[in-house]
Order: sequence, then C-alpha cells, then structure tokens
Amino acid sequence: MNAEIIAVGSELLTPSRIDTNSLYLTAKLNDIGVEVVAKAVIGDDRSRLAAAVREALVRSNIVLLSGGLGPTEDDVTRDGVAEALARKLIYRQELCDQIAERFGRMKKRMAEINKRQAYLVEGAEALANPNGTAPGQWVAAGDGKVAVLLPGPPRELRPMFESFVLPRLEKFVPPQVIRVLHYRVCGMGESDLDALISPVYKQYTNPVTTVLASPGDVQIHLRARCDTAVEAEDLLASIGPKIDELLGDKIYTHSLDTLEAVVGKLLRERGATLAVAESCSAGMLAQRVTDISGASDYFAGGFIVYSAELKQKLLGVDTAMIEAHSVVSHEVARAMAAAAKEKTGATHALSVTGEAGPESATGAEPGTVFIGLAGPRGVTSKRFHFLGARERIRILSAQTALDCLRRELLGI
Amino acid sequence: MNAEIIAVGSELLTPSRIDTNSLYLTAKLNDIGVEVVAKAVIGDDRSRLAAAVREALVRSNIVLLSGGLGPTEDDVTRDGVAEALARKLIYRQELCDQIAERFGRMKKRMAEINKRQAYLVEGAEALANPNGTAPGQWVAAGDGKVAVLLPGPPRELRPMFESFVLPRLEKFVPPQVIRVLHYRVCGMGESDLDALISPVYKQYTNPVTTVLASPGDVQIHLRARCDTAVEAEDLLASIGPKIDELLGDKIYTHSLDTLEAVVGKLLRERGATLAVAESCSAGMLAQRVTDISGASDYFAGGFIVYSAELKQKLLGVDTAMIEAHSVVSHEVARAMAAAAKEKTGATHALSVTGEAGPESATGAEPGTVFIGLAGPRGVTSKRFHFLGARERIRILSAQTALDCLRRELLGI
Repeated sequence: MNAEIIAVGSELLTPSRIDTNSLYLTAKLNDIGVEVVAKAVIGDDRSRLAAAVREALVRSNIVLLSGGLGPTEDDVTRDGVAEALARKLIYRQELCDQIAERFGRMKKRMAEINKRQAYLVEGAEALANPNGTAPGQWVAAGDGKVAVLLPGPPRELRPMFESFVLPRLEKFVPPQVIRVLHYRVCGMGESDLDALISPVYKQYTNPVTTVLASPGDVQIHLRARCDTAVEAEDLLASIGPKIDELLGDKIYTHSLDTLEAVVGKLLRERGATLAVAESCSAGMLAQRVTDISGASDYFAGGFIVYSAELKQKLLGVDTAMIEAHSVVSHEVARAMAAAAKEKTGATHALSVTGEAGPESATGAEPGTVFIGLAGPRGVTSKRFHFLGARERIRILSAQTALDCLRRELLGI
Repeated sequence: MNAEIIAVGSELLTPSRIDTNSLYLTAKLNDIGVEVVAKAVIGDDRSRLAAAVREALVRSNIVLLSGGLGPTEDDVTRDGVAEALARKLIYRQELCDQIAERFGRMKKRMAEINKRQAYLVEGAEALANPNGTAPGQWVAAGDGKVAVLLPGPPRELRPMFESFVLPRLEKFVPPQVIRVLHYRVCGMGESDLDALISPVYKQYTNPVTTVLASPGDVQIHLRARCDTAVEAEDLLASIGPKIDELLGDKIYTHSLDTLEAVVGKLLRERGATLAVAESCSAGMLAQRVTDISGASDYFAGGFIVYSAELKQKLLGVDTAMIEAHSVVSHEVARAMAAAAKEKTGATHALSVTGEAGPESATGAEPGTVFIGLAGPRGVTSKRFHFLGARERIRILSAQTALDCLRRELLGI
C-alpha cells in the first residue's frame, strides 16, 4: 500500500527550513509495510493545497498532511482538504470546549480566533492533541482512501501519530513486513557496480533495489516486502549471496556503518593503532578517523606535510629523493608512511601524497595520488588517478586510504 | 515569477535521506526575485514524475528538477520530462563523446549504459557538467515556461547551476534589478545576532533580509529589488552602515567568502605562513585551510596530536605539564602552538586542544576547548566552551581557531 506526505507551510519553502516530519512519518509507515511514493511541501495557499491533496488521493491510499492547523488565516489545511474533497467544514462545540479548557489550565483565556481550530472536515474523526491546541483529523475519503491531518510541531505530531493514527492505520493496511539488506562498497564507481549487479536485481520487483552513490562510496539497499518476516528474510537470503559473490571484497560492510567506523572496529579488534602523514588530503583522513567517538583507542595522530619542506623537516623525507622522483611518487609516499609509523610508534601508518588541483603545484597531473601504508608486514604504496574537482579528489584520497588499510587489516 | 522544485530519487523517500538541494536552489532563486511556491520529492517512477512535472508546469513558470540523470534504469528524469512534454528523447553523439572522454581521463572505459546520459529531451540545450558524467538540460517548455534538469550530487548541481542556469534564468525573469549586501559573521550565535539587528531590518520590506546560520557562522543577506541599480544601491547604502555599526569586527567579510578564504588572503597579503597543531579538531582546521586552492602559498602543514603521548613525542609537550594542568588547558594549548611554530618555521601557528565528547576522554567537560596562537608577537591562548554534539564542537573549534588568527592578523 502507498502513501504520500504533504507538509504545509510557507516557512518550509525558504532557504533555511526543511520538513523533517516526513522522515519520522516515513519510518513509521515503512514499519507497517507502507511505501512512501511522493512527498510535497506546499505554502499557505488553499487552492494549491487542495489541488495537491486531490492529486495525491488519486495516486495513493494514504495521504498524511502536517502543519497548517493553527488558528490564523495562514493556516489553510482544514480548508484545503475540505475543498479537495468538496466537503464542508463543520463546527464542533465539544472541540472548542476542549481548546478553551486547555487555555484555562494555562490560566489564559482562549482567543476568538482559536475557534477556527474547532472545525472538522465533514465526516472526519477528531484526533486528540495532548500537547497543543490543534486537534488532528482522520478523514475517510472514500474508495478505501484516507487523509490524515496532523499538527506541524514534532512534539505534537509524534505523540498524536503514535497514539491515534498508527492504530487506525494498522487496521487499514493489509499486514505486510519489510526487511532490508544493506551493502556498502568502495573502490568501484556507480556505473560499473550497477552494470555488474543489475542483471541480478533486475530479475526481481520484490525486493526493490536502490543504489546510492557518493564519491568513492556506493550503498545498495534491497528492500523486501512480504506477508511474513520469514518470507521476507528467505527472499533476501536467496538473492543476497549472488550480489555478495559479484562484489566480493569490495563490500566493506552489510550495515550502514561508514568506512571509518568499519576500519576503526578492525583496528580495535586487533589492538592495532594508526598514524597518518597527509599531504594533499591535509587532515581529511585524520578528521574522518576521529569522527568516530572513541577513536582515541586506536588513533594516535600524525603529520600534515603540505609543503615539500615539511616532508623533509618533520618526516625526514630526503630532498634528493623528492628531486629525483617528485613529491607525488611511490618513493615519497612510502617514506612518509614509514617515518610516520616510526615517529609515532603506531602499528600502522597511512600516507597520502598527490595533486588535488585545479592547478598543478607539484608538477603532477591533478588527480594523481599515491597512498603509502607502513605496517608490521612492511611498507607498500599504490598509485591512483582520481577525476573531478579539488574537493572530490581529496575526498577520494581519504576514502581510498581508508580502504587500503581495511584490506591490509583483513589480509586481502 | 514562481518556481517549483522537484527532487527525483527513491532514496529521498526513505527515513534517512532528505533533499537539501532545494534549500540551495531556493536561496539562488530568491536572490533573483523568484518565489518557490511548492517542492516535491518523487521516487524513481517515470509516469509519476511525468505527472508531477506536468502539474508543476501548469502552475509555475520555472520547474527545477534535481537527480535521476545517472546511467541506470532507475534514472528516470530524462524520460519523465520527455513524457510530461510529449516529446522524444534524442541521442546526441557529441555528448556521448564527452562522457567517453571523461572516462578516458580516468583511464577507464565508458560502460555501455552511460550512453543513456547522452539523450536530450527534444529541443533541450545541454548544460555541461565539469564534475560528473551527467549533462544537465535546459528545456524551454512553451508558454514562457522552462524545465531545468540538474544532477543530484550537490558538488555537480551547484557549479552547473551557477555557471549555466543562473545566467539563463536572469534573462528569463522580468527585469528588475537586484542588489545584495552580504555579511558573514563569526563569534556570535544566530539568536543573539538577530536580536541585535532585527530592530533595524524589520523596518523594511525592501530590502528583504535573510539570516542563515551554520555552526559558528552566520550569513546575512539584504536583498534590494528595485527598478534601477542606483535605486537598489542607494537603498542598501542607507541601511548597511547601521548593521555594520552593530556587528563591528564580528563581521569577517562583506562577500560570500568563507572564513578560511578570508584568513588565507590575510596571510598571503602579509607574506605570513601558518602551521597547525590539532588535538580534538584532528585535521579539520588543516583541511579547511587547504580547501582553498593555492593554500600552499601560506600553509606549510603541522601536527595531529590526538593522544597525550604524541603531544609529548612530536611536540615535546612536557608530561609533567600535562599531569599538572591536563591536556585540555591554557598551558598545553600554548606549548603546542609554540612547538608547531618552532618545528615548522611558520610565522604563525594555531593549536586546538579540547574535549569533543560525548564521553570525556580527557577529564574535561565536553565542549571545553583551548585555542593557542603563536606568532611574531608571542604566544597566547583562549578558553572556549561550545555546546552541542561531537561534530558541532569540532566544527566550532576549527572555526574559532581561524577567527583567532584573523583577529591577530588584523590587530583586533
């Protein structure tokens, strides 16, 4: 069964505000097997809202609205939904009494305009709001469809949804269960990955497969929707291994953990420690490692050697070596890693030296990056060529360095 | 003139992802006097997208779409817009060649599916994408309306929008002159700043004032919209000085430059150089300084001394001093800055030592941060207390360190 979510409010159409209620509502809907197929934000404009509600009810069985239930003229949700369904608004004295009583408990008098909040769309059931003045509304819209009006503030919306909407939806929705299988992959672009695995996942409409890419990192989500948990789990168990086989050790986790979290866990399990020597990534690698709370258990620190001079001064990288091979070279990457390991006493050290561009300050072509790794098994280095703007090259450098360490720690 | 924004992608309909491109696009549209009247998120569903585009083009003159331009079958934006306009998709060999060339530069072969990205909606102009494979599209939709197809990743969308869409939109939108006065401010929270300056800007509906806050950084935009440039400039000139007077040296620029760009310029102008010694910020400060292309002119590098042991080993911070004062102290911050300056030979060195939390690994209260600065005029340190989660504390540490250096360089 499908749902759409409409957030109402002109403030949500400014550059600084975002609708986050829909994330909460989506999670709750997914839990009971309902898919969200579209979301919208509409300003305080009754006829525009009426059109959006009408269109949503054509496509989906459940339409949740948040916001626009306040007492002012700007609050158009009641009127907009009534217009969409060609129904009247009906004044309900008992709702007005409840609102007045709430004001009374706060030792205040109810303002005249709050009476607007006592109007229900014809045929709607009121949903109590223990945390605010605006009651919600459950509006059966015919044809087995429903529109639900919820207040905008999360502290009002959430308790109302859990207490009064979810129990009604559970009766309304055919019972289905959703199970998700996650993959995170590095060292492979989105297109190559998709070309490899789409012949598998395209055979299925259930589970639904989503591929999400950010620089150097691809996530795959397989979402199975079945009548029972066992069925959903069996379905994923029949497909998962095929994808595992195709992607092999490029999969760094089956959770949603970041690469720095996965590498941190590997270091901790082994009682290993890490130091860094960063040139073009200039702190990005260290910053990612320490994004993980508790990283001090395995991360000591290291060196940022942006200039050739500091490579020599802090890490003792031989000036003659730099002259012979350039700072962007296997030799310098290895010397940096070896020195970082030695000077910090860490069990492992990663180094990054490369040209991030856009102009070449090192003589190397922008995107050329060498990653060095010093560990108990010796010192190695790899050459990479990353494409894109300065920021992307730096992100890929840090990501790839972490992956080199992951592979070393796993003996891949 | 009105606009609508449609984000395409099933991942944006999950509980964990949100469309943030629309915030950026809204700010840019507002800047040229275009109002955003609705936003939508549509999954990877061609016919649903086609319907949404059709409806949006009825109501608004400008429809911006983001995402869904990738090479896979999931990427439905090209097809969806073509269907909405009842047009064909046309294969363009030159676009395919450009994509293939991009892969060539990465020493990779273009996968067959990337050819999908070389299709344009009939009558569309291609918009170059220097940061990815998917070209954008500007599609004149008749009746003075336009649909613009943009890639989803912000690092691709933003440069494409600024270089190719904004200049076209400026011709498309009825001529009014817009002049904007920018402020960027640090060392002050959004609420305090707004309480201070709102009595000034609330007196005016033109210019429109927008206050945008991110951790440790507040932007103020005063947007004047007039028939002539002179009128708009006069209007801003009558208000600007009042705001300048209230905010004083907390204003670090009247441009949109970041603090690292401003500080970099100050260093370059003075022929000064910078080194860092980072503990809790662990690379974030160095990374921000080197986000600026050409930073190698004034940034040498430095030390990441996350553990107490490395503070001693790499910077010679006395173990007795750490024991007497703790690693989170004025004394250690000063010792770190002084040693970083001395060991690198930079004219200035910044140090950061603090507790980012959430648990205290140092004994200090999470949020306590000391920033040290060594320069030609000696060594100083300051204590700060930042509120919030780990990431926010780290961001504020780096931001505040940069501001300490700005003040030192300007003699404030």
